[in-house]
Amino acid sequence: MILNKVNSPQNLKNLNIEELNTLSDEIRDLIIKKVDYTGGHMAPNLGIIEATIALHYVFDSPKDKFIFDVSHQCYTHKILTGRKEGFLNKEDYLKYTGYTAPEESEHDLFKVGHTSTSISLACGIAKARDLKNENYNVIALIGDGSLSGGEALEGLNFAAKLNSNFIIILNDNQMSIAQNYGGLYDNLKLLRETQGEAENNLFKALGYDYYFIKDGNNIEDTIKTFEKIKNINHPIVVHLCTEKGHGLIQATENKEKFHWIMPNTLNGEEIIQTNEDYTSITVDYLLKKAKQNSTLAVINAATPGVFGFNSKVREELANQYIDVAIAEEHATAMASAMAKNGAKPVFCVMSSFIQRAYDQLSQDLCLNSNPATILVYWGAITSADATHLTTFDISLMSNIPNLVYLAPTNKEEYLRMLDWSIEQKKYSVAIRVPCFELKSTGIEDKTDYSILNKYKVTKEGEKIAILGLGNFYYLALELEKYLKENLNINATLINPRFITGVDTELMEKLKENHEIVVTLEDGELNGGFGEKIARYFGSSNMKVLNYGSFKEFSDREPIDELYKKYRLTKELITEDIKKILQS
Amino acid sequence: MILNKVNSPQNLKNLNIEELNTLSDEIRDLIIKKVDYTGGHMAPNLGIIEATIALHYVFDSPKDKFIFDVSHQCYTHKILTGRKEGFLNKEDYLKYTGYTAPEESEHDLFKVGHTSTSISLACGIAKARDLKNENYNVIALIGDGSLSGGEALEGLNFAAKLNSNFIIILNDNQMSIAQNYGGLYDNLKLLRETQGEAENNLFKALGYDYYFIKDGNNIEDTIKTFEKIKNINHPIVVHLCTEKGHGLIQATENKEKFHWIMPNTLNGEEIIQTNEDYTSITVDYLLKKAKQNSTLAVINAATPGVFGFNSKVREELANQYIDVAIAEEHATAMASAMAKNGAKPVFCVMSSFIQRAYDQLSQDLCLNSNPATILVYWGAITSADATHLTTFDISLMSNIPNLVYLAPTNKEEYLRMLDWSIEQKKYSVAIRVPCFELKSTGIEDKTDYSILNKYKVTKEGEKIAILGLGNFYYLALELEKYLKENLNINATLINPRFITGVDTELMEKLKENHEIVVTLEDGELNGGFGEKIARYFGSSNMKVLNYGSFKEFSDREPIDELYKKYRLTKELITEDIKKILQS
Repeated sequence: MILNKVNSPQNLKNLNIEELNTLSDEIRDLIIKKVDYTGGHMAPNLGIIEATIALHYVFDSPKDKFIFDVSHQCYTHKILTGRKEGFLNKEDYLKYTGYTAPEESEHDLFKVGHTSTSISLACGIAKARDLKNENYNVIALIGDGSLSGGEALEGLNFAAKLNSNFIIILNDNQMSIAQNYGGLYDNLKLLRETQGEAENNLFKALGYDYYFIKDGNNIEDTIKTFEKIKNINHPIVVHLCTEKGHGLIQATENKEKFHWIMPNTLNGEEIIQTNEDYTSITVDYLLKKAKQNSTLAVINAATPGVFGFNSKVREELANQYIDVAIAEEHATAMASAMAKNGAKPVFCVMSSFIQRAYDQLSQDLCLNSNPATILVYWGAITSADATHLTTFDISLMSNIPNLVYLAPTNKEEYLRMLDWSIEQKKYSVAIRVPCFELKSTGIEDKTDYSILNKYKVTKEGEKIAILGLGNFYYLALELEKYLKENLNINATLINPRFITGVDTELMEKLKENHEIVVTLEDGELNGGFGEKIARYFGSSNMKVLNYGSFKEFSDREPIDELYKKYRLTKELITEDIKKILQS
Repeated sequence: MILNKVNSPQNLKNLNIEELNTLSDEIRDLIIKKVDYTGGHMAPNLGIIEATIALHYVFDSPKDKFIFDVSHQCYTHKILTGRKEGFLNKEDYLKYTGYTAPEESEHDLFKVGHTSTSISLACGIAKARDLKNENYNVIALIGDGSLSGGEALEGLNFAAKLNSNFIIILNDNQMSIAQNYGGLYDNLKLLRETQGEAENNLFKALGYDYYFIKDGNNIEDTIKTFEKIKNINHPIVVHLCTEKGHGLIQATENKEKFHWIMPNTLNGEEIIQTNEDYTSITVDYLLKKAKQNSTLAVINAATPGVFGFNSKVREELANQYIDVAIAEEHATAMASAMAKNGAKPVFCVMSSFIQRAYDQLSQDLCLNSNPATILVYWGAITSADATHLTTFDISLMSNIPNLVYLAPTNKEEYLRMLDWSIEQKKYSVAIRVPCFELKSTGIEDKTDYSILNKYKVTKEGEKIAILGLGNFYYLALELEKYLKENLNINATLINPRFITGVDTELMEKLKENHEIVVTLEDGELNGGFGEKIARYFGSSNMKVLNYGSFKEFSDREPIDELYKKYRLTKELITEDIKKILQS
């Protein structure tokens, strides 16, 4: 194996093209095997193997600085920079993150998981280099759909005017997670078709020097161009054409599916979803509603698969389906304006990514109170990578005036809220799509959600009231039982449903025969739901216990450990309650 | 007066060019007089008078939809759409907001005050129009520096592919608030110089049809082009060259100063700042520090005047001064990376605008804990327009992990924090620059702010503890006195200094001889500082009273009324305390 000889990028320098080609085959095999075993970003990594080898062959990391965008294209980089055992040995498969991570290697500059950051980050590295009078190459590797994000475009505008070495390598694999959308992707297509010679060239228009690499999966060609631009003294864009999923036919034939795969996708049977879940009932509902109302439109930002918007669904929705590419700011503002002009937009977005549009939520949407609907998926405490936590959406969104943010706990409630949101014309509404197995009461929910901030008492009791928000309503149920069994307390159980307001009437009533209020929320405590309850009771005798996650970027911690740390189990909460009762 | 005949845009249609020119002169006089009296956006409005008249002459608002970016260019639009008395009569000068406002007129579609939103909002209007099978023109009026913002660029990418009527009018006045920066502005310059004929054309590269108007202050020429494009069936960009401040020599000669002016600027003596304030001591400090350390760099996003970075200061800072144009996302990420690479970036930003970079604060900066410094200006409850509130920065920023957000209360504390932040290498730090008259103790602050979340007890007392955060430390002082005089209570006074953490040791100690903790913060209660204190004491017998602003977009409400509503006076707080003591 050539890879045996490669323990650092320096070892590449002595290899000839043939050996480098062999090395790329070896790395490809490792990535396919490892990613199919653990799950992960398959296609993006397969496309960029050759170019990454060429990068490390020509440039001198860590002296030269590579900044990866999204950084889910960094597997080859990891293998070449002293972390190959994470791909060679099954027992080390989970040793390293799926993203760049400075704590792992001096070759990684940033923890990066959200898209569109590399150019701006590289600008900072370059600007500091210049202020320190140092000399080296600064290289931003962007692409795979990241370029359409606002931060990337701001950076692209700024970097054009740097008057020193600055290299943007644009990995043009013709894809985002799904198909790309927008004028800039048309321009890339034109440039591909003309081998970079077209008159209309976005990058030249911005002032960049421009290089075109026709086959970025050809190591020799790529090296030749990289050698030309090494130590260049001005900003350039290298338009590197690659094939997403290169070398794995299943991936090249189904780039979207293989962007990120579950374990055992290659040889396993495809898992066909047979039972309903919150994703499938959302799709079913939206398809039905779209047929009834031709102004209903579903918006997403380059992640249709997450929401079950497969090609069949998209075709059915036709012009009522809008993928804005990676552009959450634009999606939020556009949804607001569509609602203003009488259409019924439903913007589907993941909890981790809605934070890319705070100002648009506040100014474009809520300040104008336009009746758009935002479905926030996957908001929950999870064992995700630190770059993709989904614990911040409540504190992010629920402190914005005018927004109605709802937390359903079962199918009927969810569908009722969804329908109410789409039909009403008064409020900007977000719904935190439940993040657990689908629960159904079988009884139609007939609540009028126009009566804001009315919590639902699902069981009347005394002494202790448990507010189980959204996902954690079921923890509240468990706790209620446990208190009965262990402390013989007949607790009150409450399903708040509204994240964005306090049911003051009910809270006042609780004072009559309750001593303790417990709040449970599946997200960050700081700035969250529970603190509003604590503030409400601040001047009273009511004791309040808030449970949720700490203010931290947890990083791939097992969920049980997180729950234990945050005291999110019925046993630990009962301990806390006991302490108060005894004091 | 021609204007006497103009009560709605329809009345323009009967006027000839000569009359339209006279009308523009009349409007110019009104705007100059009104804005000089009340203060406001002078130069942006003077530049766009003729084009606005041409717009309303050619198109048919409100059937055709105009979406103004920033919307501080909308004064002529307001005059032409039934609101001229707000400019004619002194007593009506404050009747209308300085921005578009749907509640004022059917000709205004959105409340807009932050930049870069018009294209995305217009996309939503157009998309809804198409879904409803309606027919009219949708026109986004952008410019005056707004195009470099991420949301605008995302929108520009998206809109290029709309296959129906969509008109972007780019008001190119060669300025942002200050000079523009970035590759796109170079392209605009090239296009101006070639009268739109240059081969490199950013808009054509993105797929837009492109029209050039050489003199957008010439009504006749502008009308001719607008007539050509009316009812066009695809997306186009009209590159409209105008002169910022047109027709007022003081403004054209000093565009930056006249972007937004204080009342009585034209005839009044220029106010020369003679006494120190927090802005001036910041500038002095940064200039001194920049000389000592060549890697210190000051970053801002197109609003240098706000921070006192006048041309003299900028020249002195030279390459240690960076204006990224309107691009807060880029500025935040770049600051993080500069710190990572050993430089000392200080990003100066207004409270209302830092919210444009939430994801960058979280992911690019705090997840990486790079030691950049962010100075947040003007965070406070004010009587500002709803679009420019400065009450949300605490709830926005303080719930992000890893960030150290500081609230100084006087000059010495502020300078010490600033210096500590710049010298330390461990934390991402933000400082909420005090928003009141400069206070000085005259005694050097020697605190080691590396010891996080240590509050300062400035007066030991009992029964009641008052936590006066930042600006409101002085309200805490007043309250302390008032309690002494009126209730004979010797309260404890605390200056928290750290917004982002609870001093648990001190809080525990308070339990020994205090019954009530009062928190005062100059910002939103929801998600803010006080709620953390309420949560901390939730399970104890301590009563907590939190004071700050409600979750609302207050709109030009007098500050005294706001304070009264929020019970932010010593008398009202004392009433609340009395109630608790009596219960």
